Amino acid sequence: MYEQLTKFIKGRVALSEADLEQLLSCFHLLEAKKNELIARAGETSRRMFFINKGCLRVFFIKPDGREATRRFAFENSFSTSLTSFIGGTLLKESTQVIESSELLYIHREDFYQLLNTIPAWEKFYRSFLEDAYIINTRRLEDFITLNPRERYQLLLEENPEMVLRLPNKLVANYLNITQEALSRIKSAV
Amino acid sequence: MYEQLTKFIKGRVALSEADLEQLLSCFHLLEAKKNELIARAGETSRRMFFINKGCLRVFFIKPDGREATRRFAFENSFSTSLTSFIGGTLLKESTQVIESSELLYIHREDFYQLLNTIPAWEKFYRSFLEDAYIINTRRLEDFITLNPRERYQLLLEENPEMVLRLPNKLVANYLNITQEALSRIKSAV
Repeated sequence: MYEQLTKFIKGRVALSEADLEQLLSCFHLLEAKKNELIARAGETSRRMFFINKGCLRVFFIKPDGREATRRFAFENSFSTSLTSFIGGTLLKESTQVIESSELLYIHREDFYQLLNTIPAWEKFYRSFLEDAYIINTRRLEDFITLNPRERYQLLLEENPEMVLRLPNKLVANYLNITQEALSRIKSAV
Repeated sequence: MYEQLTKFIKGRVALSEADLEQLLSCFHLLEAKKNELIARAGETSRRMFFINKGCLRVFFIKPDGREATRRFAFENSFSTSLTSFIGGTLLKESTQVIESSELLYIHREDFYQLLNTIPAWEKFYRSFLEDAYIINTRRLEDFITLNPRERYQLLLEENPEMVLRLPNKLVANYLNITQEALSRIKSAV
């Protein structure tokens, strides 16, 4: 069950077998069901997830009660609410299981403990933070520079599998538009 | 001229006087005039700036040619286009001097070289990345969960000095609305 995670880590940093073994021993299996909430707004972010199989959605609740999706995470990627994970502050977003998923998670305490004991993990974390920064900045850029139609076209170009794999309702939520608006855009493209 | 930067760094990591001296020797002074572009879309991000005095604006150009502000940076903070700085990719955003500024900058090569030679700089960079991630995620959250009026009210609560210090035109651009829309919001608040 650790094959994908091992490949993911080794693809980013060089580390000894002993260090790798110590690292992997901190990751635990979670079989999560569709629609389950594995992190909830108002609590703290205590786990970081690696996705072996499945899909997660990270979303905020707007002041009017509607949901706004920040991110979808698929196989072979990590997902957490890093702002809360870093600062220990209360979560402002929730994480929902979109397809029944096989996840590996590490507790926040173990994650930070490893930073002090395995130098390669410090390098891994740096690379992880850089990637997370780039992904979020890109998404911010899309929201402040593109209109809904342009955002949909970009999504089609860069992540067509997201449009194919997810229900329209979730794609619309990711673009921050209604399902009706998405239908109009699709029929006009 | 290094007092503020020294305080900023020492406030985040513990480091020896020798390391500090080596670090500071990599920072150079730049007196930049109002409206000057100190980083341009299409080039690469080769410098990171620390602001001793003044204000910088980081902005994208939309497909329709209009500008969209990602961030304002004021005294005692760093500013760069981290996505390009990290990856060496071409800049998608420009940095403009909003008020005549006294800046200290470090070249990208020196910055990464220091990561290999001064362990405290690696820790500093981690904390820097965490802060940058949190700032950008917060801004993304604001854009996907709040309407323009709510964004303005939040700005008034959290950064009233930004509203007082900057011209209306720039505040409107930061909120990604027209000046007319900002005037309507202001008169309704």
